[in-house]
Amino acid sequence: MTLLQAIKKGDTPDLIHAVAKAEGVPAVHLVDLLGRGRAVVPANRGRIVERPCAVGEGLRTKVNANIGTSQDHADPAAEMEKLRAAVDAGADTVMDLSTGGDLPSIRRAIIDASPVPVGSVPVYDAACSAVAGGGGIVHLSPEDILGTVERHASDGIDFATIHAGITRRGVERLREQGRLMDVVSRGGAILTTWMLANDRENPLYERFDDVLDIARTYDMTLSLGDALRPGAIADATDRAQLEELVTLGELAARARNAGVQVMIEGPGHVPLHRVRANVEIEKDLCDGAPFYVLGPVVTDVAPGYDHICAAIGGAVAAMSGADFLCYVTPSEHLRLPTADDVREGVFVTRIAAHAADVAKGVPGAADWDAEMSRKRKARDWKGQVALAINPGLARAMREGDVPATEDVCTMCGEFCAIKVVEEYLRRNGGDE
Amino acid sequence: MTLLQAIKKGDTPDLIHAVAKAEGVPAVHLVDLLGRGRAVVPANRGRIVERPCAVGEGLRTKVNANIGTSQDHADPAAEMEKLRAAVDAGADTVMDLSTGGDLPSIRRAIIDASPVPVGSVPVYDAACSAVAGGGGIVHLSPEDILGTVERHASDGIDFATIHAGITRRGVERLREQGRLMDVVSRGGAILTTWMLANDRENPLYERFDDVLDIARTYDMTLSLGDALRPGAIADATDRAQLEELVTLGELAARARNAGVQVMIEGPGHVPLHRVRANVEIEKDLCDGAPFYVLGPVVTDVAPGYDHICAAIGGAVAAMSGADFLCYVTPSEHLRLPTADDVREGVFVTRIAAHAADVAKGVPGAADWDAEMSRKRKARDWKGQVALAINPGLARAMREGDVPATEDVCTMCGEFCAIKVVEEYLRRNGGDE
Repeated sequence: MTLLQAIKKGDTPDLIHAVAKAEGVPAVHLVDLLGRGRAVVPANRGRIVERPCAVGEGLRTKVNANIGTSQDHADPAAEMEKLRAAVDAGADTVMDLSTGGDLPSIRRAIIDASPVPVGSVPVYDAACSAVAGGGGIVHLSPEDILGTVERHASDGIDFATIHAGITRRGVERLREQGRLMDVVSRGGAILTTWMLANDRENPLYERFDDVLDIARTYDMTLSLGDALRPGAIADATDRAQLEELVTLGELAARARNAGVQVMIEGPGHVPLHRVRANVEIEKDLCDGAPFYVLGPVVTDVAPGYDHICAAIGGAVAAMSGADFLCYVTPSEHLRLPTADDVREGVFVTRIAAHAADVAKGVPGAADWDAEMSRKRKARDWKGQVALAINPGLARAMREGDVPATEDVCTMCGEFCAIKVVEEYLRRNGGDE
Repeated sequence: MTLLQAIKKGDTPDLIHAVAKAEGVPAVHLVDLLGRGRAVVPANRGRIVERPCAVGEGLRTKVNANIGTSQDHADPAAEMEKLRAAVDAGADTVMDLSTGGDLPSIRRAIIDASPVPVGSVPVYDAACSAVAGGGGIVHLSPEDILGTVERHASDGIDFATIHAGITRRGVERLREQGRLMDVVSRGGAILTTWMLANDRENPLYERFDDVLDIARTYDMTLSLGDALRPGAIADATDRAQLEELVTLGELAARARNAGVQVMIEGPGHVPLHRVRANVEIEKDLCDGAPFYVLGPVVTDVAPGYDHICAAIGGAVAAMSGADFLCYVTPSEHLRLPTADDVREGVFVTRIAAHAADVAKGVPGAADWDAEMSRKRKARDWKGQVALAINPGLARAMREGDVPATEDVCTMCGEFCAIKVVEEYLRRNGGDE
């Protein structure tokens, strides 16, 4: 039985009690969300996740960090370092997106070492095998692709991106309307190429029941990929994207009916004024399935700062109801991220998630801010550093520039507004 | 005659033609905005601003960088370096907020060297003189404060922050309601202290007509400061803040009637879901006067990343109608910013401003994004670097990690989605 099947049957597995406690919500509430497909708890039955989490409606917004090798950088040790960096910085989940080196061994090492849920994109692995075998992507068989999904599930992957929503009709719509950037999802590009070269339908769509069988067997959560996500703000919210989202809504319903937990992936590049609409449309079309967005970045012009472009879009997306933010690092559009990039990407995405949690009233979220402000008012610098989202950074900046007077900082010195006004506000019947 | 008086008389000064051209709008449109107080062109009549700009409705969102010494760091050369850093990174204006060293000489050096409009906060200078003179802030006379405003104007300051909206009634409201952080504006703290210690009304409020006389004489734009801006998200949009904003609306009307250009300063710390309301309220209460916001930062918990917290809030504020973003640097709440912090603060704030300009449909804004996406599609790396908001950063990241195949990057290598799909989309009757 899967977690979802157990819940539908009326059970509340131990895992749910643990996750509800960590989330600070009653187990019965989490059960309700899971039963209605409004939240997921990605946890492959083949392994114990040390720090499982729930992703969904009204819960703390979660942050994912993508790690993994590439053809240019296929060092497994570097990826283990990135895993540690991501987890230390507070990532709720990681995804192994490796495309270089010995993929199964890297995947298993990450699964073994990760205290948080691990996701993957099996079709990358299938494509790498095809290329390594000399046949190329277009010679993959549907069985090759499904076989890779099964291998990831049996290795213990907790959630897998499945690009089942891109169909021949979607590709046709893409062509008919034209796009600045066409396809920018790697999984989407692999499947589009396969479909065009073979003049056949997407096997992950055609054989979605087989995908569901695998997912159910291992209790692997499906993350339905947005193969046609826009890769330029000019392409955002177009017919190709929406065609796919409509299909994802249908597939999500099939997954839930099959007892398989499911979430939906979203863009990408979206202008700021359309971020909210993108979230609302997903919630409507997919019956409230958790929405897992990549950014979205709100401008194309800032390579090197795409973690910030994504934080702007991610904060607004999460405030509007997105449940899960895939981080973007400073390296996006330029290179494979380093461990430092991973760390920075996680911290900055956590800021976006937290700002959204305050905005949407996630219980307890604003308490952190209030506590920080109390330390600030008290000019308690150790307290401020300890409460900072990245204490190491705050400490280095504070200690690297010590003021002449200890209780202020080098910006305002004795003109510290808090300090200047304090004495007189108190003397004249102030607020204490 | 001031610029505003000339426009009301029906003239279109040369300066307006130049600024309209730089903004890409018809001069007649800019004249209309200025005449109705919907935009300002800060330009002291005593100097020639090399790169003047307009701030207001529907125009490109502008970015200000605060520089200036403190008691702990009173090195004029360091501030000149920050001025260069700010201007090179694309700041539209700078403000000299010095509080350490020889303030008049630093101010004049910055005015002389700055190609962009220069702002200041005269009351800081008055407070520093009082402290240096041994008397302390509370012994300032109204004439001392007004005299400093006049000295800044006669030195050539293009726009001055005047905290005329904080009154005894506002301070009383602040006390009655209570606040986590009380007063966090330095100017606000100085004036609050002065009012409480002397049991008198704010001289900048009581003698606002004298302030207007000075501003009119030198054609200095007034930036009405928000002395009671919230310094914690828990304090945002409270009665004290709104009481002051109501007063600022009254003062703005008086300024316009006196032929003085005026804009309104805004918060500060605001939770993300209230950013839009803050902008809309300002526009309503102040008859559409340009809104100049500091951030707003959308969470208190991220010292070291406050430029990013401010970019999130600033993007949403500007999308909602804010016209002018005061940058926040990574140093905010921790120390006086370095030249590197200044540079980073400007770039990140420009990202927020640009994302908002795309969202609000500022003519031409999205063209930059489309051009970048075309270069990305073509895998033209030199073109992408050249178009990047910070080409130096993009180049360093790209060139620091050269891929084996030149036309892709080290993240995806030969699995570059754009490259994978291109051949087949074209072969099968694609979009070219």
